Amino acid sequence: MTRMTATFPTAPDTRALEHGDELTPRFDANGLIAAVATDADSGEVLMLAWMNAEALARTLDTGEAHYFSRSRGELWHKGATSGQIQRVAELRIDCDQDAVWLKVRPQGDGGACHTGARSCFYRLVEDGKLKAAP
Amino acid sequence: MTRMTATFPTAPDTRALEHGDELTPRFDANGLIAAVATDADSGEVLMLAWMNAEALARTLDTGEAHYFSRSRGELWHKGATSGQIQRVAELRIDCDQDAVWLKVRPQGDGGACHTGARSCFYRLVEDGKLKAAP
Repeated sequence: MTRMTATFPTAPDTRALEHGDELTPRFDANGLIAAVATDADSGEVLMLAWMNAEALARTLDTGEAHYFSRSRGELWHKGATSGQIQRVAELRIDCDQDAVWLKVRPQGDGGACHTGARSCFYRLVEDGKLKAAP
Repeated sequence: MTRMTATFPTAPDTRALEHGDELTPRFDANGLIAAVATDADSGEVLMLAWMNAEALARTLDTGEAHYFSRSRGELWHKGATSGQIQRVAELRIDCDQDAVWLKVRPQGDGGACHTGARSCFYRLVEDGKLKAAP
């Protein structure tokens, strides 16, 4: 495979950023944007992760969610080892283009979390303590 | 009002972090965690923002979403000026406690975005271009 260096254009002004039709993601100082994945069918929030430009480009090119693992410092094709591939039904970007929302369909066992849970958000806060979400 | 310095405990180990009942949020090098807000009724993702310890503590104390504005560098009581107060129906935290998910009911005009949109995620990517989400 040839080495790919993904780049995206920069919005010329706030109007283009917020109302234009060009994808001009604003990566942070570490080259990342936040990505929230929800289940395309149930709407449940599954996980919150990060993308660099290459992860975003590959996600758009392949239709499968790619992230950037901050702990491992590398591109992360979600599910490549676990089988929990996330097929992307829709990808949205927010007003100032520093966050994306992916509606996905998890493959494999249908989970998204390394703990075995369907969603990473399996605990809620109640009276200052964590308890299992329903 | 007396000055409040919010602090949270640190999980002693991975098991406590991922499966314990103590809220032990892991703030990043800038003292922030990511916070995704969804509409408690429709499930739509409304916005992605940031919280420092004080914002999280105030959100839990008041039942109204507080964030940390990275651009202004200050605590941000969402809706304090716009009227778009977000009443928190539920607050979840993820497996490694570095992201929270708030299910909220927006007050005022019901919007969450400074552009006037209901959700900040009003555009989707299709064939490399942005278009209005349905």
